[in-house]
Amino acid sequence: MKILVIGATGTIGKAIVSALEGKHTIIKASRTQGDVLIDISCPNSIKRAFEQLTDLDAVICATGSVAFAPFSKMTREQWDIGINGRLMGQIHLAQQAAKMLNDNGSITLTTGIIADHPIATGISAATLSGAIHHFVHHVALELPQGIRINCVSPSVLTESLDIYADYFPGFRSISAKEVAQYYVRSVEGVETGKVFKAYVNN
Amino acid sequence: MKILVIGATGTIGKAIVSALEGKHTIIKASRTQGDVLIDISCPNSIKRAFEQLTDLDAVICATGSVAFAPFSKMTREQWDIGINGRLMGQIHLAQQAAKMLNDNGSITLTTGIIADHPIATGISAATLSGAIHHFVHHVALELPQGIRINCVSPSVLTESLDIYADYFPGFRSISAKEVAQYYVRSVEGVETGKVFKAYVNN
Repeated sequence: MKILVIGATGTIGKAIVSALEGKHTIIKASRTQGDVLIDISCPNSIKRAFEQLTDLDAVICATGSVAFAPFSKMTREQWDIGINGRLMGQIHLAQQAAKMLNDNGSITLTTGIIADHPIATGISAATLSGAIHHFVHHVALELPQGIRINCVSPSVLTESLDIYADYFPGFRSISAKEVAQYYVRSVEGVETGKVFKAYVNN
Repeated sequence: MKILVIGATGTIGKAIVSALEGKHTIIKASRTQGDVLIDISCPNSIKRAFEQLTDLDAVICATGSVAFAPFSKMTREQWDIGINGRLMGQIHLAQQAAKMLNDNGSITLTTGIIADHPIATGISAATLSGAIHHFVHHVALELPQGIRINCVSPSVLTESLDIYADYFPGFRSISAKEVAQYYVRSVEGVETGKVFKAYVNN
């Protein structure tokens, strides 16, 4: 398969590429480097990138910014980081991907455990990741030509604990390598409309 | 209690007012009529209205627009109707209400069954109502001074079947009077962080 991985330079993105590249042709994308440049928060950036690509079987999005702040202090500008990134960035991507993917292709989005398990300053992540979960359940019924869509919602990464451990007290982390297997399942499997919760015991 | 009902002129709003007005002081609000005018999609409108109000114990929001269209044709402008209404309208309202409500006050928001049970053209309603469900679960942990927050997610109203029946094939409707009881439970009860699913067998 020919697979576009957006956010290929991130910790999860790199693990996804490692898990898939032996078997598939991988096109790496990020905002600043890769085979193509894509900033999902800018619909025209997605459009321009897709004009350069043909014959894609899968699109994986392993990016999607949100802002972190206490609810009482969150400004609309902070909400808009997530609305344009995590939420509409991934929705625009899915909409455009659905028009250009090969028949029986797949789209895989990314959210996070905060959707279902609160942490301090996580209100925007919870709200907008939750939105993507409901989006995926619903939109799977509307995609044409056998195109599937799923979402991976990982716990905090083991590789990121040095930075984020204090935000996830007592949460069990997961390695990027283990998370990557949920993307493999989404791309190579048959499921659609699923949120793969990449964590246990949280 | 002194209770602000936003969307008081709607079918649910009127039923909420009927259910609460014998026992409580009700302040009715909508975009175009009532004791105060509030357009939740405009943060300054919420601010101006709250400057006129004191000593509130509860805020109920029975409004929050979304656009209906097939996913493949949804424009960002159509998404923004729901982002500014259903999503950020209710989030701004909750943020401002949390700063002005009396201790142990309550906030009650409104979504709809489409969050969990898909219908054609319902992708924005599903996504943004789902976002509010996750928002309510999470933000309940952040509200100060005993303030509670819940959300009511009703099925199609029996009163609206003449207009909407074809959009909800085989769904069981619920009367506005029955829906209103979930708002009574939210305001007079003790629960917080809950989504009251006002439907059965769907």
